[in-house]
Amino acid sequence: MKVNGGVCKDPKAVTADDFFFSGLHKAGNTSNPVGSRVSAVNVVQIPGLNTLGISLARVDYAPRGINPPHTHPRATEILTVLEGTLLVGFVTSNTENRLFTKVLQKGDVFVFPIGLIHFQQNIGYGHAVAIAALSSQNPGVITIANAVFGSNPDIPTDVLAKAFQTHKPIIAGIQAKF
Amino acid sequence: MKVNGGVCKDPKAVTADDFFFSGLHKAGNTSNPVGSRVSAVNVVQIPGLNTLGISLARVDYAPRGINPPHTHPRATEILTVLEGTLLVGFVTSNTENRLFTKVLQKGDVFVFPIGLIHFQQNIGYGHAVAIAALSSQNPGVITIANAVFGSNPDIPTDVLAKAFQTHKPIIAGIQAKF
Amino acid sequence: MKVNGGVCKDPKAVTADDFFFSGLHKAGNTSNPVGSRVSAVNVVQIPGLNTLGISLARVDYAPRGINPPHTHPRATEILTVLEGTLLVGFVTSNTENRLFTKVLQKGDVFVFPIGLIHFQQNIGYGHAVAIAALSSQNPGVITIANAVFGSNPDIPTDVLAKAFQTHKPIIAGIQAKF
Amino acid sequence: MKVNGGVCKDPKAVTADDFFFSGLHKAGNTSNPVGSRVSAVNVVQIPGLNTLGISLARVDYAPRGINPPHTHPRATEILTVLEGTLLVGFVTSNTENRLFTKVLQKGDVFVFPIGLIHFQQNIGYGHAVAIAALSSQNPGVITIANAVFGSNPDIPTDVLAKAFQTHKPIIAGIQAKF
Amino acid sequence: MKVNGGVCKDPKAVTADDFFFSGLHKAGNTSNPVGSRVSAVNVVQIPGLNTLGISLARVDYAPRGINPPHTHPRATEILTVLEGTLLVGFVTSNTENRLFTKVLQKGDVFVFPIGLIHFQQNIGYGHAVAIAALSSQNPGVITIANAVFGSNPDIPTDVLAKAFQTHKPIIAGIQAKF
Amino acid sequence: MKVNGGVCKDPKAVTADDFFFSGLHKAGNTSNPVGSRVSAVNVVQIPGLNTLGISLARVDYAPRGINPPHTHPRATEILTVLEGTLLVGFVTSNTENRLFTKVLQKGDVFVFPIGLIHFQQNIGYGHAVAIAALSSQNPGVITIANAVFGSNPDIPTDVLAKAFQTHKPIIAGIQAKF
Repeated sequence: MKVNGGVCKDPKAVTADDFFFSGLHKAGNTSNPVGSRVSAVNVVQIPGLNTLGISLARVDYAPRGINPPHTHPRATEILTVLEGTLLVGFVTSNTENRLFTKVLQKGDVFVFPIGLIHFQQNIGYGHAVAIAALSSQNPGVITIANAVFGSNPDIPTDVLAKAFQTHKPIIAGIQAKF
Repeated sequence: MKVNGGVCKDPKAVTADDFFFSGLHKAGNTSNPVGSRVSAVNVVQIPGLNTLGISLARVDYAPRGINPPHTHPRATEILTVLEGTLLVGFVTSNTENRLFTKVLQKGDVFVFPIGLIHFQQNIGYGHAVAIAALSSQNPGVITIANAVFGSNPDIPTDVLAKAFQTHKPIIAGIQAKF
Repeated sequence: MKVNGGVCKDPKAVTADDFFFSGLHKAGNTSNPVGSRVSAVNVVQIPGLNTLGISLARVDYAPRGINPPHTHPRATEILTVLEGTLLVGFVTSNTENRLFTKVLQKGDVFVFPIGLIHFQQNIGYGHAVAIAALSSQNPGVITIANAVFGSNPDIPTDVLAKAFQTHKPIIAGIQAKF
Repeated sequence: MKVNGGVCKDPKAVTADDFFFSGLHKAGNTSNPVGSRVSAVNVVQIPGLNTLGISLARVDYAPRGINPPHTHPRATEILTVLEGTLLVGFVTSNTENRLFTKVLQKGDVFVFPIGLIHFQQNIGYGHAVAIAALSSQNPGVITIANAVFGSNPDIPTDVLAKAFQTHKPIIAGIQAKF
Repeated sequence: MKVNGGVCKDPKAVTADDFFFSGLHKAGNTSNPVGSRVSAVNVVQIPGLNTLGISLARVDYAPRGINPPHTHPRATEILTVLEGTLLVGFVTSNTENRLFTKVLQKGDVFVFPIGLIHFQQNIGYGHAVAIAALSSQNPGVITIANAVFGSNPDIPTDVLAKAFQTHKPIIAGIQAKF
Repeated sequence: MKVNGGVCKDPKAVTADDFFFSGLHKAGNTSNPVGSRVSAVNVVQIPGLNTLGISLARVDYAPRGINPPHTHPRATEILTVLEGTLLVGFVTSNTENRLFTKVLQKGDVFVFPIGLIHFQQNIGYGHAVAIAALSSQNPGVITIANAVFGSNPDIPTDVLAKAFQTHKPIIAGIQAKF
């Protein structure tokens, strides 16, 4: 049997482990250019989440690390800071493009509405940790820089130069990093 | 303007605070008969969650404390243990009534599918803390004991005696506690 | 082909019998501890109901029989009394736990909203019969007593003793009946 | 407060009567050209059905009476015969236009999938009665003859003559009856 | 893998052609009794539309040609006139059966709400062309005349005679054309 | 009455004009930095679209003009080329970031799945025109360059420099254009 495109186990063979994941207390490796790491816990890690419309992620941030601007095409996110200090923000759609930002401390909660571009930055001196809950078992992530400048193959340079109102060599320079 | 039965602010008057909540790092008071406390963060606390289909709760457990059997009529729950050791479980529907249980440690995650009766028990020596994410901005909670034995007014004692296949004085004794 | 987890027949092989069920005029056997019988007509009995979001049940009640407190995790129920006199009720969620009750006669209709605990009791002198329509092709039933006191394996007795604020022997006595 | 376009009562003012309707045991008056009567019990009659996605109707049929071809734009229907003998049918969409029919006796159940044209005819010697459940609190009814030949104002006669591949006087004759 | 009843290609094997259709600029053949032709572009023509909830159609109309009264059981339609002059209309449900009509010129747009009976007629001197967008990847079409008078097998003539309040020979005459 | 946050007219006061829009045949003004113009026809222009889940837009492109990379958070788009030659593309989500592209001619149709970043570029010698249908009455548009580099206030320059792996003066230079 398959539901929602995923394989359903025989109900008699389902066990508690199909609803279980272990390890969200472990810090993710933030040794990368953006200085953050997202550890996802969704229907890939927990098959029993299929059709249930929710998932989690742990985010670790090195000092000055960022979770770069991205969207979740299928989920709203509600983020709780466990440690550290984060500057967070999201931008509304056209024609306003308003930026809503907030500095979050331990125990603070912030909502990023479905489909909007958002980011977090660790503005404290130490590491920061947050737990994000997402309103989909398979929320998807579109990291803007990777999708726009690092797609495979590249979006034509002249399209991006006109879109970002800059010169092709600058676009090509950014594309070369992804 | 109202959406989903809730009042919508004028978009120009919305601020980042409409998507923000502070205080989830504070321990709840567990001095009560069940030895646990649920601190909810839903559309009542964060108006910007309206229509977005997700919410949170922090649960504190005294040693041996329980979050008694309950259902969320509008949400699946995904629970992450931040501290302590919990025995958790949910029961499937008729005619199986299978109990799925698991002992959770720090960093463990468990899913309680929408509508099913579930519980947690602190089986460690110290306090325990968990963060629960729920797939509704207004998930609702039906605590079985309170709804069945503590409704206002009472469900007739003879109905409950027959339902639980016991004697009326036993039912009346339980009702008297709620 | 499969839709919604169920097997789809080849459309050319579908017949009117795939949308048909016979026998809802037959009284169910109420010789059991609760004195009632639910005869379900859902996607199991009528394959053509798949994806269509509705199903039925006939409920027979012996004198003083009850349909014990239960929930449908995926459906609202609208019940019509065909014969007899029923006391019916449902309980709202926390923190109100209000009981709404009504005595129903032949031709009366009552609604039990999705996810809420509800029951019926035959308070007349003869048999009673009702037709229930449910807003799901597969509504599910969680009979509270069976799920809480009769799960397989048992919910730990100390969890239930604390939840129902009573002594373990009383819990164990109820568990022994299921 | 309003939800789904309907006025919400103050929750404290809600009573069991908001979930209740009386009178579905009474026969409808079938003294009309089609020889049937539909008595609807939906969100108009039971305000508490709002957002709950289900409703009912009782249908009475005089001998040879019909419930003429119609669709429910927002609901699947599941019909139970309480008395009498009905010929029922529905027609699939283009390009098959297959007619599925069945003769139903007391206790028989039949499903009319959402949006499809369907009808019932009393082919027995006495009155017939059925209960229909519908998967919407406000299912809507489009009676084909009334919508096509009895709209206000009329659909142009030449449009209908071409659609039904007949002459304008025949169309005009049918329009004159509605 | 299958989603929504359709076969899912291996994601690695998906190409841009799975989201592509060619030929909507070609006029359809209107040499038929109603003088119109609908060229559909839905999930059958574009497999990548599966689960995405939208589709298109091109409609060509000979002079005086009609797109006869029909419903889409799963879609609202929004129609744009590219060439010519169309009289369009839809009829509301019981008990109003109001006809809303409008004469459309090139560049005009009109909406036919989900499930309602609607039609278009070319009232200009030349050919007319429109693009219709529909809110389902598989909207379905029920052409009223074909479903009611041309089903396979026929709806009984006496049912239709009573429904349309006319004589059986008139019904039989219409049935003979389909 | 309000439904979906929008004001509902009294049904008796609704007219055909509530479902009508005029002017989609008029070319939009493309004298702007990107060389394109989107003329939207959604629930703002046609109040009768409320709750119906579909809308339109006309897009005009000057030679070499682009509709820059953007997402619709609430809609899939299906685009039909009426005139000219377009290079179109969309990028999948992490971790693939695959670019699907196609050159479209008159009469060609292409699908941009909900939430994904997509663009069009006029690669012909003359103007180009397309009609886009969207699976929401209020699809929303997030133009990536405007949201990321032109928000009000700006996203901190150091966040963007790290996200795009470039130097702050380059970021500041792009921000200055928006």
